[in-house]
Amino acid sequence: MDNAQHSSLSEISSMQAVEIANLISKTSSENQQEIFKQLRPPLAVRVFEYLPRNVQKSIICSLEPEKAAVILQEMSPDDRTAFLEELPKGTTSELLKLMSEEKRKLTLTLLGYPKNTVGRLMTTDYIAVKLDWTVQQVLDYVRKNGRDSETINVIYVIDDHGKLIDDIRIKEFLFAALDAKVKDLADYKFVALSVNDVDDQAIKVFLDYDRVALPVVDNQGILIGIVTVDDVLDLMTEQATEDIQKIGGTAALEGPYLQTPFLDLIKKRAGWLVLLFIGEMFTATALGYFEGEIAKAVVLVLFLPLIISSGGNSGSQASTLIIRALAIGELTLQDWWKVMRREVFSGIFLGVILGVIGMMRISLWSAFSDIYGPHWLLVAVTVFFALIGVVLWGSLSGAMLPLILKKMKLDPAVASAPLVATLVDVTGIIIYFITASFILRGTLL
Amino acid sequence: MDNAQHSSLSEISSMQAVEIANLISKTSSENQQEIFKQLRPPLAVRVFEYLPRNVQKSIICSLEPEKAAVILQEMSPDDRTAFLEELPKGTTSELLKLMSEEKRKLTLTLLGYPKNTVGRLMTTDYIAVKLDWTVQQVLDYVRKNGRDSETINVIYVIDDHGKLIDDIRIKEFLFAALDAKVKDLADYKFVALSVNDVDDQAIKVFLDYDRVALPVVDNQGILIGIVTVDDVLDLMTEQATEDIQKIGGTAALEGPYLQTPFLDLIKKRAGWLVLLFIGEMFTATALGYFEGEIAKAVVLVLFLPLIISSGGNSGSQASTLIIRALAIGELTLQDWWKVMRREVFSGIFLGVILGVIGMMRISLWSAFSDIYGPHWLLVAVTVFFALIGVVLWGSLSGAMLPLILKKMKLDPAVASAPLVATLVDVTGIIIYFITASFILRGTLL
Repeated sequence: MDNAQHSSLSEISSMQAVEIANLISKTSSENQQEIFKQLRPPLAVRVFEYLPRNVQKSIICSLEPEKAAVILQEMSPDDRTAFLEELPKGTTSELLKLMSEEKRKLTLTLLGYPKNTVGRLMTTDYIAVKLDWTVQQVLDYVRKNGRDSETINVIYVIDDHGKLIDDIRIKEFLFAALDAKVKDLADYKFVALSVNDVDDQAIKVFLDYDRVALPVVDNQGILIGIVTVDDVLDLMTEQATEDIQKIGGTAALEGPYLQTPFLDLIKKRAGWLVLLFIGEMFTATALGYFEGEIAKAVVLVLFLPLIISSGGNSGSQASTLIIRALAIGELTLQDWWKVMRREVFSGIFLGVILGVIGMMRISLWSAFSDIYGPHWLLVAVTVFFALIGVVLWGSLSGAMLPLILKKMKLDPAVASAPLVATLVDVTGIIIYFITASFILRGTLL
Repeated sequence: MDNAQHSSLSEISSMQAVEIANLISKTSSENQQEIFKQLRPPLAVRVFEYLPRNVQKSIICSLEPEKAAVILQEMSPDDRTAFLEELPKGTTSELLKLMSEEKRKLTLTLLGYPKNTVGRLMTTDYIAVKLDWTVQQVLDYVRKNGRDSETINVIYVIDDHGKLIDDIRIKEFLFAALDAKVKDLADYKFVALSVNDVDDQAIKVFLDYDRVALPVVDNQGILIGIVTVDDVLDLMTEQATEDIQKIGGTAALEGPYLQTPFLDLIKKRAGWLVLLFIGEMFTATALGYFEGEIAKAVVLVLFLPLIISSGGNSGSQASTLIIRALAIGELTLQDWWKVMRREVFSGIFLGVILGVIGMMRISLWSAFSDIYGPHWLLVAVTVFFALIGVVLWGSLSGAMLPLILKKMKLDPAVASAPLVATLVDVTGIIIYFITASFILRGTLL
């Protein structure tokens, strides 16, 4: 019996649901099931909601169908949707059969919304009241029905058709006279999400409006759910993770790095790696064209990686800046012209800085040795101009690629650092050797 | 008079604070001040809190000192701290002088906490009650004092010394009998942040516990403030942005891309670019050692960018996966051995995949042309083994570098895609030419 299970017997009763969940996720698979089976329903459900997805899966499969049904039945609707959408279809329908008619219908409705939309994110446990209710009625209603509600921070006001007409903070009800009416408190100003909004839009509204929950309406403006900030927090973390992984040149992983099965990890990485490799093959083709020049002036090869990687680096900088600015809405497609102008100037400026350093290095080394041959000054000038060209091209293509992808309704984060580097490598070779053939014609070439 | 100002006159009264703030941030600088001056104090303060930092700065400087004082005075303490900490010291002390004794003291205390700690993030507007109060007393107290509180979702229970002993949701008070006592509701289980916790720890607790606010205690356990989820949301966005920018090889920007002054942008980029350039100069040194080999076998140069960039790409993949896993706490330093084992196997596996493709390409081209010379098969074998070595080395160093940085208490995100690529470029050249000199000895070399 390991340590975790030991503590489960003696101390679990004094722990919070999230702490029990943390404890469970850290023990071995059999212990997980052991500990979980000791929990009684209301606590068991809350612990279950805090468990990582893969642990949830293995536990639900180990339970008798009746207990599994209780857990699913009592989960909050949004957590249930999030859990079920990641199970294989067959398992989901098995589990749905165990649930009550009413909950099954609700679950199927929520699962019917497209992935990555507000419909999948929302819960249906909220409190809605009408304009002609008194504050006393509202507070009584909250007392009676608020237990299940995910938040009672905000009370929603609907008309007779269920249309959302206002949101009022619970604060206001506490401050008001008990015989005041809801309409006395209403200001008819509210912010709502549409059920078809994509996740990104929901995040943006939460960031802008500093709310802990937002109502969700359908096309007719009927209130059908709420989204709470804890789910938005999780979603943002997940999205930033995916973006970062894509920027690094990997397909987004589905779970934590160490828990991702080895072959999945390979698959997520090999796809892009092979694609980049094939793209990079064009460097061999490009260099093939300049084989004559290379044979004549081997000294040019010495600076090849230096020059093309500088283009790749400036491209990585530009693409990640633009990808992130697009992701958090700091930048829109309309700004492309401003971006381009900035990057042209940045590219030239940064290129000159690197060019000067490169020239100095070649001159300095040549002052004390013969390593770069008699035409070292011309080589230095070649490196100078090639760096400006390559860094300018790198900055410009790195910045424009995410915008072009966005314009084509593709994910800008695909313009990963390695992808930009690969593009710039191929063109960098061409820029370098063309510069060289102009400057070194008649001497080295 | 432009459009934005026009709407300001006719429609502003019907708009929410955040919408007015959005409107203001989109107009020209003079119009910003114009519109803002029309707002009366309670609304003006709320609009001000929603404005971007740079607009806040220009507006506060344009106001008469008295009005500026009113705005600062009425801001919530956390927003005020966040605003003042970004102003030059001189301006801050000017503004502090305008404030009341009490608010000035509070502000100085909050500004006294180290940057990036919970102390800078917290607000002092919260509601604390005692164990022997009745529910009725608590609700009356909330009605009287809740207006300024950032959230009344959770009520904090303190003892006679101000020590935090419980947190109770407002829900529970609404559900309870009015003559019940606070101690009847208390379960003495709570989660609190310490005032000295760094931001990352605060984020982790919010993600784990799904709370909308968390209490903050000092070293003695005395309740001194709360942190609300809206600030955590902003903080997470900011941190993900900084990490992404670092991964792309830029120092983190202080504001949005388009609002960053051109020279600041250059400075943030040039630093890393120059450092990487200097690192990359070692490729010229390394290639210098192999100049003889290059002159004899120019064909090797054709595959040079292909091989070293594959190492850089696999390194970017590994480093971004590890940086992100460390940032969100999926991975700790203790896992280094598991990471290393995974990356050794991944590196070999991925290297073999690329190696096979590389060999096939060389063989296929050689079947139809003489481009790679009579020893093309040996060249293909060289490329195969070099790719395995370089990809293995790239994956391994990409994964280990963030862990080493973390171990040295440095920021793992510094192991940017370009930095890893640069490291791997230099070593990749050495791996490639050493492999070549083994395999091609006696034929090409």
